[in-house]
Amino acid sequence: MREVTSDSLRSLTLRSPYLIFLGDIQELVDAKTGAGLVQWCPEKVMGQFRFDDCLVDLGVSDLSIAEAKARGVKSIVIGVAPTGGRFSQRWIQVLVAGAAAGLDIVSGLHHRLEELPGLVTAAELSGARLVNVRTPVDSLPIGTGDKRSGRRLLTVGTDCAIGKKYSALAITQSMKARGVNADFRATGQTGIMINGHGVPLDAVVADFIAGAAEVVSPANHADHWDVIEGQGSLFNPSYAGVSMGLLHGSQPDAIVVCHDPTREVIDTARHLPLPGVAECIELNLQCARLTNPYVRCVGVSVNTSGLDAESRPSYLAELSVELGLPCVDPIRDGCDAIVDKIFAESVLEG
Amino acid sequence: MREVTSDSLRSLTLRSPYLIFLGDIQELVDAKTGAGLVQWCPEKVMGQFRFDDCLVDLGVSDLSIAEAKARGVKSIVIGVAPTGGRFSQRWIQVLVAGAAAGLDIVSGLHHRLEELPGLVTAAELSGARLVNVRTPVDSLPIGTGDKRSGRRLLTVGTDCAIGKKYSALAITQSMKARGVNADFRATGQTGIMINGHGVPLDAVVADFIAGAAEVVSPANHADHWDVIEGQGSLFNPSYAGVSMGLLHGSQPDAIVVCHDPTREVIDTARHLPLPGVAECIELNLQCARLTNPYVRCVGVSVNTSGLDAESRPSYLAELSVELGLPCVDPIRDGCDAIVDKIFAESVLEG
Repeated sequence: MREVTSDSLRSLTLRSPYLIFLGDIQELVDAKTGAGLVQWCPEKVMGQFRFDDCLVDLGVSDLSIAEAKARGVKSIVIGVAPTGGRFSQRWIQVLVAGAAAGLDIVSGLHHRLEELPGLVTAAELSGARLVNVRTPVDSLPIGTGDKRSGRRLLTVGTDCAIGKKYSALAITQSMKARGVNADFRATGQTGIMINGHGVPLDAVVADFIAGAAEVVSPANHADHWDVIEGQGSLFNPSYAGVSMGLLHGSQPDAIVVCHDPTREVIDTARHLPLPGVAECIELNLQCARLTNPYVRCVGVSVNTSGLDAESRPSYLAELSVELGLPCVDPIRDGCDAIVDKIFAESVLEG
Repeated sequence: MREVTSDSLRSLTLRSPYLIFLGDIQELVDAKTGAGLVQWCPEKVMGQFRFDDCLVDLGVSDLSIAEAKARGVKSIVIGVAPTGGRFSQRWIQVLVAGAAAGLDIVSGLHHRLEELPGLVTAAELSGARLVNVRTPVDSLPIGTGDKRSGRRLLTVGTDCAIGKKYSALAITQSMKARGVNADFRATGQTGIMINGHGVPLDAVVADFIAGAAEVVSPANHADHWDVIEGQGSLFNPSYAGVSMGLLHGSQPDAIVVCHDPTREVIDTARHLPLPGVAECIELNLQCARLTNPYVRCVGVSVNTSGLDAESRPSYLAELSVELGLPCVDPIRDGCDAIVDKIFAESVLEG
């Protein structure tokens, strides 16, 4: 077993292709991570592992461990939580067999893989890695605030869990489609699995948040865009520290605000009202100017799934007029209008 | 050896009285932590341990390990870094002898005490504790943003290392002198040593910064004041994430801004100018309103040591007129004027 630490790499790097471990889950909603992998990095997904009583199908090949190994799979990615929070004996048997076959085991769960009986020994014998994406990352630098070359876009939000990862992926896709040299930069566990590398921002030691964000989007070519997955919200009293450090370390040229018009209160603090989009833009720009005085808001990404078919277009149109910015639902409309805005703004070109 | 974790306590708790370990240091400036302990908690300091070639004297009794043990010392506090960064053999011998005698060893250094040869065994045999004040703290809760009873004051700053701990201690002293039920709340290593307990905010995992701040200043009597040691600055691009989480978790009724008029650039990012005091007040109040809409700035604490005798009073007077707030040098003037302001403001009384 080789230890996966930030000491050598500073950011996690996963080996693909993946076998997505679904175990015996019963509901698609519990397979969000696996579904995200199939949607956003189908080229990395070789197949799924399911027990006979699994009711979810991601629409990719069912593979045994031996078949996966034979086809060149490098990692088993556990994107589902075990029922009741405990790994059953048959889950453990499959993971141990995978590690023994030399496949990395990648987990986004709170449990550390090292606690599963037999797994460490199997990995040590084969040279497989046990990768806990939630484990705090050491050996990061303190943030410097120094300007790096290349362009950066950060998705921010009126709250946590409001579409920042999805929007960043959709914007990256739209940039690439028009030939822009762009990369998605992952800061959360699912984003890291999709991208194959990144730093789990919420798991770093507090003093190093901004430094970790600087590591996530290193200096690059002058016309290259990093599209960075945001975390939390400056208006979420549980996680705003992470959001602030990420904002400063990302030194974005452009921010996109993610919002849900049907959410009335902050997810983790339900006595607090959701801020308005304009207020959210203003505070993020004010704070972001510390490390990039030229930061601009280039659009709003709205989850309109809670609106009815009639009010959806009028909501987006009115918000767009109010803010003077493109406002899109990334799932229904894509993010081309936001990317148009970026490249129409001469201030961001120069 | 008993393990000191936050699992049981969530905040570190040190046992006093202390023996301050000075070793063989040559300059008073290297004994800042020890000097701070003698100044702010003389009742906790039983003596100092010095080798014959030590050139620093904190003005307290020189004690051997045996004498310290006989007089009831409970902890040896290492407040100085070893020359060249490595513990010499004679340092280690003294610490091992102290641990063998049942004295807790408390360190604010980056080195983990467990790495010193013989120390773990000595502590295990005697039941002494090895307390690494910089070690990341686990098992903290996520911040809730829920309003807690009791009053809170937080010191914030135009930069890091600008007097936030000193100011909080001086304000606590001034409050106590007028009979206010007040406690200093420590968030950094020296503050924790002075106070005997606290949470090292910069060492918690990022997701738990605000939660840790909530643990630091728990619910209290309605007329009780927590005076919370600030960390970093919203204007410091290395540490603003910690400052933001501490601001939200502290939900202060009152903030005091710490400033140094001779500092021109940010300590860890020397390409950035120091913000103005008014700007610093405004951004801190704006962000603090998320968890306490009634927050007020009640004064400015200025390090005037870099000003000459003539310009000192005029600087403070002009700043006071500009801001409409008491502006003091806490070392020269004390903080009574700030505490007067707090209790003159009916909005903070209610």
